[in-house]
Amino acid sequence: MKIIFLGTAGTLPTINRNLPSIAIKRKGEILLFDCGEGTQRQMLKAKLGYCNKIFITHMHGDHILGLPGLLQTMSLFQVGFPLKIFGPEGIAKFINDIIKIVKFKLTFPVIIKEISEGKVCKEKEYYIQASWMDHTIPNLGYALIEYERPGKFYPEKAISLGVPEGPLWFSLQHGNEVALANGKIISPRCIVGPPRKGRKIVYSGDTRPCEAISNLAKNADLLIYDTTLDDKLTEKANKFGHSSPSQGATIAKKANVKQLIMTHISGRYNNADLLIHQAQNTFPNTEMAQDLAEFKVLYPK
Amino acid sequence: MKIIFLGTAGTLPTINRNLPSIAIKRKGEILLFDCGEGTQRQMLKAKLGYCNKIFITHMHGDHILGLPGLLQTMSLFQVGFPLKIFGPEGIAKFINDIIKIVKFKLTFPVIIKEISEGKVCKEKEYYIQASWMDHTIPNLGYALIEYERPGKFYPEKAISLGVPEGPLWFSLQHGNEVALANGKIISPRCIVGPPRKGRKIVYSGDTRPCEAISNLAKNADLLIYDTTLDDKLTEKANKFGHSSPSQGATIAKKANVKQLIMTHISGRYNNADLLIHQAQNTFPNTEMAQDLAEFKVLYPK
Repeated sequence: MKIIFLGTAGTLPTINRNLPSIAIKRKGEILLFDCGEGTQRQMLKAKLGYCNKIFITHMHGDHILGLPGLLQTMSLFQVGFPLKIFGPEGIAKFINDIIKIVKFKLTFPVIIKEISEGKVCKEKEYYIQASWMDHTIPNLGYALIEYERPGKFYPEKAISLGVPEGPLWFSLQHGNEVALANGKIISPRCIVGPPRKGRKIVYSGDTRPCEAISNLAKNADLLIYDTTLDDKLTEKANKFGHSSPSQGATIAKKANVKQLIMTHISGRYNNADLLIHQAQNTFPNTEMAQDLAEFKVLYPK
Repeated sequence: MKIIFLGTAGTLPTINRNLPSIAIKRKGEILLFDCGEGTQRQMLKAKLGYCNKIFITHMHGDHILGLPGLLQTMSLFQVGFPLKIFGPEGIAKFINDIIKIVKFKLTFPVIIKEISEGKVCKEKEYYIQASWMDHTIPNLGYALIEYERPGKFYPEKAISLGVPEGPLWFSLQHGNEVALANGKIISPRCIVGPPRKGRKIVYSGDTRPCEAISNLAKNADLLIYDTTLDDKLTEKANKFGHSSPSQGATIAKKANVKQLIMTHISGRYNNADLLIHQAQNTFPNTEMAQDLAEFKVLYPK
């Protein structure tokens, strides 16, 4: 699973940072989280294909104004697969209105779901959990949570117990007992290791520190968090519904995440070292998001 | 006067070309022609200030979807001066609707004028002439036309004729006769050269070749013209309301312009040499627009 930062600015673009958008590439599927102005061009620069799902955190312009152009371009290319868009109340009207105003026709199915907190999207191998954060308008944080995978299969054990290669192996690997031709019952525990944990990636969107993000991020492999302003401007950050690096780091520590990546960075910081140092004092495994940077998230050992 | 190309792609952005927008910087004023998605960030990259006037050629998404973000950013910065936006029918509804949808408040005066062809904007030193072109939807081409400036003033002649330095010089330079204290009448012809020509810049927007662009571009210092596809694809270009390099060059020649710059370039051309050669066969003084390239337009001699 790869995280590609398409835009890491807060509120206003800068020369080095585009407006907010994060892509997750997972087994041939591309999930986009937020879609600020210019996202379609950032996707080209990142050599990404078009996305299958888009999750919008909130209805502020800097997080959604890339949607019309992206939808228009995907329509021109007649992408040929459906796109699901999830977001808080207002997202459906925004998309429907803008299509009418700019007068273009969708040439592929777009399914828009206005959602609240909960399991908002269930797939075979993962689901997306949304929680309300604490911003100036309703903002959903999102967690991509992979289900446990079947444990490691030991073929040598299967052979030694007389289980012939084929459908019985598959059945054992998926946790089922099997009966051999000689009537012997084989339990998967004899041949398959314990289930292996999936990965968990959490993105806050715009938020002040709150219980909801600590809960949503619990034991995540990666937390991507809004640290718009540095610690000295914490009060200002919180006033406008954002956080500071130390606040992000405190949440990362409390939630026991493996890694913290800071994003939604104000244009006043040409060099983000200050913010990194402030966060690393509390949570050493912190990095700063940069436009077009990629992070691999491996399966936990 | 400086022309800064902010976006030179046609229809879809590419890695090297943003969506259409051209800035003209003239005596501290910035005029924008079209405002595709990502224009506000291109303005930052070009180290431009915010614009005073925006002229929209037509209501296709690739020419207008940068407006909402730009207006929102200018509102956040409380720019403190009015912005005039000119465009064909639909531009006012587009802006008013999008402000409602994205729910932001303008913090500075925005004056929107829905226009047809004619003199659409008159300033002290120049005016903007608009003409209907031939695209798939109504598209206005624009000419920025400077008025003649007063002729060159020769101070040594003024002194030799006994005109004291001061308000009389100013009056002579602006074409008025003046009376000296001794009753002598001095004509400006004795001291001031003939009026000097202003400059003329023409931008087609999206168009097929048509009489209107040849007329609008007559004797221009610079014609910026839509050459979306190369000569071999002329039929396709025309079908979708665009032109090819040879068609642009033919218009430049017919209209007796000094220089042609081609823009609105399809993403299929990684290297635009082919298009330049095709145009230069007919009109040698042709250049290809590149994002963030600047062109100075000097006063004609």
